[in-house]
Amino acid sequence: MSKQKRFFLTEDEIPRYWYNIQADMKHKPMLPVNPKTHQPMSLDELSTLFARECAWQELNQTDAWIEIPEEVREYYKYYRSTPLVRAYGLEQALETPAHIYFKNESVSPVGSHKLNSALAQAYYCKQEGVTNVTTETGAGQWGCALSYAAKLFGLEAAVYQVKISYEQKPYRRSIMQTFGAQVTPSPSMSTRAGKNILTKCPNHQGSLGTAISEAVELAMTTPEKCKYTLGSVMSHVSLHQTIIGLEAEKQLEMAGEYPDMVFACFGGGSNFSGICFPFMRHNILEGKTTRFIAAEPASCPKLTRGKFMLDYGDEAGYTPLLPMYTLGHNFRPANIHAGGLRYHGAGTIVSQLKKDGLMEAVDVNQIESFEAGILFAKSEGIIPAPESTHAIAACVREANHCKQTGEQKVLLFNLTGHGLIDMAAYDQYLAGNLNNFTPSDAEISMNLDEVKNL
Amino acid sequence: MSKQKRFFLTEDEIPRYWYNIQADMKHKPMLPVNPKTHQPMSLDELSTLFARECAWQELNQTDAWIEIPEEVREYYKYYRSTPLVRAYGLEQALETPAHIYFKNESVSPVGSHKLNSALAQAYYCKQEGVTNVTTETGAGQWGCALSYAAKLFGLEAAVYQVKISYEQKPYRRSIMQTFGAQVTPSPSMSTRAGKNILTKCPNHQGSLGTAISEAVELAMTTPEKCKYTLGSVMSHVSLHQTIIGLEAEKQLEMAGEYPDMVFACFGGGSNFSGICFPFMRHNILEGKTTRFIAAEPASCPKLTRGKFMLDYGDEAGYTPLLPMYTLGHNFRPANIHAGGLRYHGAGTIVSQLKKDGLMEAVDVNQIESFEAGILFAKSEGIIPAPESTHAIAACVREANHCKQTGEQKVLLFNLTGHGLIDMAAYDQYLAGNLNNFTPSDAEISMNLDEVKNL
Repeated sequence: MSKQKRFFLTEDEIPRYWYNIQADMKHKPMLPVNPKTHQPMSLDELSTLFARECAWQELNQTDAWIEIPEEVREYYKYYRSTPLVRAYGLEQALETPAHIYFKNESVSPVGSHKLNSALAQAYYCKQEGVTNVTTETGAGQWGCALSYAAKLFGLEAAVYQVKISYEQKPYRRSIMQTFGAQVTPSPSMSTRAGKNILTKCPNHQGSLGTAISEAVELAMTTPEKCKYTLGSVMSHVSLHQTIIGLEAEKQLEMAGEYPDMVFACFGGGSNFSGICFPFMRHNILEGKTTRFIAAEPASCPKLTRGKFMLDYGDEAGYTPLLPMYTLGHNFRPANIHAGGLRYHGAGTIVSQLKKDGLMEAVDVNQIESFEAGILFAKSEGIIPAPESTHAIAACVREANHCKQTGEQKVLLFNLTGHGLIDMAAYDQYLAGNLNNFTPSDAEISMNLDEVKNL
Repeated sequence: MSKQKRFFLTEDEIPRYWYNIQADMKHKPMLPVNPKTHQPMSLDELSTLFARECAWQELNQTDAWIEIPEEVREYYKYYRSTPLVRAYGLEQALETPAHIYFKNESVSPVGSHKLNSALAQAYYCKQEGVTNVTTETGAGQWGCALSYAAKLFGLEAAVYQVKISYEQKPYRRSIMQTFGAQVTPSPSMSTRAGKNILTKCPNHQGSLGTAISEAVELAMTTPEKCKYTLGSVMSHVSLHQTIIGLEAEKQLEMAGEYPDMVFACFGGGSNFSGICFPFMRHNILEGKTTRFIAAEPASCPKLTRGKFMLDYGDEAGYTPLLPMYTLGHNFRPANIHAGGLRYHGAGTIVSQLKKDGLMEAVDVNQIESFEAGILFAKSEGIIPAPESTHAIAACVREANHCKQTGEQKVLLFNLTGHGLIDMAAYDQYLAGNLNNFTPSDAEISMNLDEVKNL
């Protein structure tokens, strides 16, 4: 009998609500804190930075389901549902009895899951009379998504891209420019935050924290017309990404399966939240026992080696203080190719879930991640983004474990994006020129010491 | 009411037969000719070069439907059906009353339609005990597809890539290498054909014709173990690509529409054949009046300015003589970014159809093609391959015409692939550095004169 490989939903079956896990959590995540007053941020305060609807979602800890605006749903139909794929090729290559599935977010127009939230944020900005949006981007996945969403809703977009990625991945910059965005390598001389950093350290290669500072600063110059948007970390971004897991749940049902373990790469938490929270709901409410694994780079190990504390989301200290697992907002991650994972902290929801033992984290070295990426490319035909390879590597570890034990576990991972723009990284791997990076305990302690009295 | 944007088939609805238009053509295309005997090639003769099953399909002018092997259908499920998309965004941008649809072949694992035939050819080679395959590639779309298909079926692949593309598109080379293929820039010193060309012209930038010569020569060294594969031109390749149009027909039916005009970019004819032949069948058999438009680059205008005559498929003259529209096998097309369209001739079936007035051809300059590409990217979110932009440009012309006349025509084009690997070309366009190229009448005549006594 022929085996079904891919599972799709009809346009009518695409979810109409995002899932807000905050409403179901027993221990609510702490809310963002005003650094001056040390009080939780109010809706008004948060709305100076973000679209008001996003700020409202950020603080919403009571409504489990939030309706997706019709205009956003119409644009979702351009690429959703994304396929849920049974990875027969990978299973065969690993000779594992495990059933491996992946949710293929790489088929979105911009090549990653980031569009799920970009469309929502751009829509809310437009609704509220905003004309300009700013943001930061690392590898450029979020920047591409926001540039395209801004174009669709008639907004001007200014993107600060981490300098190392701007140079490593020139095609991503071109894509943003093709969509009409203005792209600046960060740190730049165009903001106070950028100037300060370049003065202290003229060869600074950039970090997400620095680029956020620059984008926030630009947005704050005309807060009524211009809003800041963020591709991860914040709770409203996690909310928008739950469309991934909600679809996957229905699609797995079509396959007659339910996941034993779910894997996602981890930068700030957007795709992890997206694929995991809808399943985690059943752990919280119905006592299911699915395990959720965040796969972070060993070079930026906020969940496995960071501390839970109040910290800034950006390098210059412009953002609210966030209660989160962090390596310190001055932490400078090594220049790994998975630029989207080079962030010092984890979102507030994920941080609380980790604290409460509702999820796990593992770290993956760069070389292991690319090995997994190549294996996946050869067996499934899709070149994965360097970020996604971390989830694949974690899943491969478990599939190999299943081979030893004979367990037929159902494993699900999120393929956040394709790596077609990242072939230079694959070239380096194939040439044997990739390295692993692991920060020392001393380096991490030093950074955290700077943060502890915020 | 919500408008449906994308149409999919279930795995069970994916066609089980390819459509062989040769069987339904009133004037059959002439068969490939042995240059020594000037007789039509026999099955045995053709089988020294191609897999025997491909050679059989090449010569088959009687069976309208040829079954797709089950193993190939299983691999088709990895990405088929590809979506048929109603281009609401593009329609809105053009303010046209036309209904524009595109078949999105860019979602295949390797990013283009080329996999449809690569899987079939690799499968037949494997079945026949072949261990190695060779081929040429221009932009690299076909090379990537064959490299991946070879990997799936356990074959070694050697790819000669046109030098200008090898240099312009290094990521495509990396993708082929990631799949395990051996990639050589052509012309190379590794074959007699390559050496001869480099001796005459040391700075030769390569052409598809030259790369074919090299791949054919390599295959002929051990014909029992190694077969040559081709990504376009040949009738069996067109056959495999009809899966595109057969799906599109069912999908348009779901949308309650039938195309008035179908547009495809034109290099050797593979995607044109694929999307057009299933619809053309209804013109031939039932008197439908759909118009079929091949959009070729003005720099390589075989259909609009070439002559119908016997010519070689490659520069060195290793292939059979093909009865086709050609610019002469020594024609050196300008270095446009649409590397996949830089071929001197058109397949034998398309050439006969053009001669019989069953299809039309238009030429498109490079700058117009990129203008259309950018418009499409901004309105539909997908960056199209430089090849595909030619089909978009031709469709845009007609959509603009419909705006003038008020006609609500149904227009369908094939999006052969994405342009994510081609962002350097978009950069040049955005910087105003792209040029148009048009060969002079004298240049074309001179080349054709060399061919006329073959």
